[in-house]
Amino acid sequence: MTDIKELCQRAKAASRKMAVLDPKIKARALKSMAKALIDNSAHIIGENIKDVDRARKNNISKVLIDRLTLDEKRIKAMAASLIEISKLKDPIGEVLEIRRRPNSLLIKKVRVPIGVILCIYESRPNVTSDCVGLSLKSGNCVILRGGSDAINSNTAIFEALNGEALKNDIPEGAITMIKDTDRSVVNDLLAQEGLIDLVMPRGGESLIREVTDNSKIPVIKHYKGVCHTYVDGSADLNMAMRICYNAKVQRPGVCNAMETMLVNKKIAQKFLPSMIKQLKDAGVEIRGCGETIRIVPGINKASEEDWYAEYLDLILSVRVVNDLDEAIEHIMKYGSYHSDAIITKDKKAAEKFLNNVDSACVYVNASTRFTDGGEFGKGAEIGISTDKIHARGPVGVEELTSYKYVIYGKGQIRK
Amino acid sequence: MTDIKELCQRAKAASRKMAVLDPKIKARALKSMAKALIDNSAHIIGENIKDVDRARKNNISKVLIDRLTLDEKRIKAMAASLIEISKLKDPIGEVLEIRRRPNSLLIKKVRVPIGVILCIYESRPNVTSDCVGLSLKSGNCVILRGGSDAINSNTAIFEALNGEALKNDIPEGAITMIKDTDRSVVNDLLAQEGLIDLVMPRGGESLIREVTDNSKIPVIKHYKGVCHTYVDGSADLNMAMRICYNAKVQRPGVCNAMETMLVNKKIAQKFLPSMIKQLKDAGVEIRGCGETIRIVPGINKASEEDWYAEYLDLILSVRVVNDLDEAIEHIMKYGSYHSDAIITKDKKAAEKFLNNVDSACVYVNASTRFTDGGEFGKGAEIGISTDKIHARGPVGVEELTSYKYVIYGKGQIRK
Repeated sequence: MTDIKELCQRAKAASRKMAVLDPKIKARALKSMAKALIDNSAHIIGENIKDVDRARKNNISKVLIDRLTLDEKRIKAMAASLIEISKLKDPIGEVLEIRRRPNSLLIKKVRVPIGVILCIYESRPNVTSDCVGLSLKSGNCVILRGGSDAINSNTAIFEALNGEALKNDIPEGAITMIKDTDRSVVNDLLAQEGLIDLVMPRGGESLIREVTDNSKIPVIKHYKGVCHTYVDGSADLNMAMRICYNAKVQRPGVCNAMETMLVNKKIAQKFLPSMIKQLKDAGVEIRGCGETIRIVPGINKASEEDWYAEYLDLILSVRVVNDLDEAIEHIMKYGSYHSDAIITKDKKAAEKFLNNVDSACVYVNASTRFTDGGEFGKGAEIGISTDKIHARGPVGVEELTSYKYVIYGKGQIRK
Repeated sequence: MTDIKELCQRAKAASRKMAVLDPKIKARALKSMAKALIDNSAHIIGENIKDVDRARKNNISKVLIDRLTLDEKRIKAMAASLIEISKLKDPIGEVLEIRRRPNSLLIKKVRVPIGVILCIYESRPNVTSDCVGLSLKSGNCVILRGGSDAINSNTAIFEALNGEALKNDIPEGAITMIKDTDRSVVNDLLAQEGLIDLVMPRGGESLIREVTDNSKIPVIKHYKGVCHTYVDGSADLNMAMRICYNAKVQRPGVCNAMETMLVNKKIAQKFLPSMIKQLKDAGVEIRGCGETIRIVPGINKASEEDWYAEYLDLILSVRVVNDLDEAIEHIMKYGSYHSDAIITKDKKAAEKFLNNVDSACVYVNASTRFTDGGEFGKGAEIGISTDKIHARGPVGVEELTSYKYVIYGKGQIRK
């Protein structure tokens, strides 16, 4: 406990230096850190193999092993993200708003870092590098608490990054890794109100729930991605087919993959048989409503729980709806407000969907798989928020900032 | 418990209508509601007298009775705030950012309401009206939970406002008041995750602490205002005198009043005797550091606790510091990151102070008393945040919004 408090105090002290650090120092450090990842890739992969071997021995699922595994290509992608982040406009000091008041007070709203950010995550080691990059660029200090599954990989990545950061004038304490993987450490961290300013949990629902329940520090979270695609009566059915296939099959283990497909009854008869055949050919298990089963016999029946489910796997629930309103009501009832799409040629239907589906990202005629910091041009993401407070959708550099009011007077007093 | 859940479900349902309500309807309703306050002022004052009488019988402090008391002038001020809020630009639907991606996806970041906001507050009945006005303008529903001290006043204000709102096409359930003043009701409300989106507690430290400790819903809070004014070595001493007097004396019971004055040792001898005389003449009790007492004998000694204290009363702690750095360190150690000012003619000193004091509002050559939604041009405020997440400083209409990403595609899929 004392150690944790000390680490957090060191991070807090470093955060005051980070807040006023020259943007050039940050950009240069990030570039060098990207190079350090590449230079150390043999060592990082060696450490990663230890984690993957242990995971295999523990019979961990294929999807999780995929998340855990690093290779040259993935390390290059991590480095590329750091380079992209280094090139983004430095957000700190940006004047967001200027007001001149009738009493001639000049009020500037200026972007500032948040301070110390705690990232709690599970098995994807690239999160280590993304969190470090985004936190430094936004002038924050970061405390990393990765899962035990990836401890060797994370340690190797952290050491490469932190060593290079220190050589490049990033203050000591700006990047901290907690190597103790005991669960109780998380609660010790969540008690450091006043030292840690924000908690970003990233992982399965039970992790997020545990963090939210135990934290007095503000949390930006992302419970799950129960993403829908609604194929409207006026959809281009070939486009719908391509988009739905992509949203389900391209990478089923991630939060922006489609979990439920809603199909307007007008085109269900025409659309479902070939769509479902395509999905089945790709190994997708279909769980349908009564009408879906009537149209495509021989598939499993979806239960009430299926509509709420985030499968993160090659499973899809399918429902035929009467109209757009029913699709919207379904998404609002069962969805997780992450990413939802409508496929339609009807502009009015599109606008109604976009306005009334209260999700972080709403799409017309595109795959929900695009909800991603990189795809949004943010370089990377520290998480995808399904909250409405502070940040929504992919959390990048700008979302890791706050602001302060700087007020210039000439002796004004309040009457 | 069932009742609370039902009320929240009604508010949640209404929030979907509020989110897409015509801006003209909101503006017109707010204007009519302002008129309704004036038209009902005799009744509101009559109900307020009941609260004030009971408070007097309970020997409640003068400062609290001042907060509680309503008169024609204060009701006019509440109505004027509603009018000012009605005239603000409607924030909903504002496009905050547009990105066109290389794959030609068009990503718009659009301002949306948060949803359902729970306001928990104590004895100031004008909070009822401010919360309603700001919430409606920002397209949110509001649940009001005022203190038992002001229950008659709050009920009268709520009835006037809600009656008029309903006549003006504001959806039923958009404004809810919880009349049950039992403390347990607060915990029932804080358990309504998924129905309530944001909690704004407004009141004393113990209330805020209780809400933060018990809420799983995000909270934007404001613990206390330990505001400092630092009189620099190069200050215009007449200006410093006017500003410090104003910051302490004009309304000592509010969060943006000065609680500690820091004085550079170079000008302490010249400044302190007449400054302290002026403050004492206004009835202010001074608690000084050793050096302050050496310069102005006969005043009380400040204890370590005094530097942390939010007096909300005619008491001031005074400390002589060696230089700007010591002033900054003092504020960072003992302050509450609310509002802090430097009085100086030295531009470099001003910039150093403004950059290094990590408070929501930092001033040069003005009174900290200006930290206020009205003074900032926001019409009113629903609270003043000392958090760094989501909103900082006065929380007005814009701060009560979130955003969503609306993405327009032409069949794009992820490669």
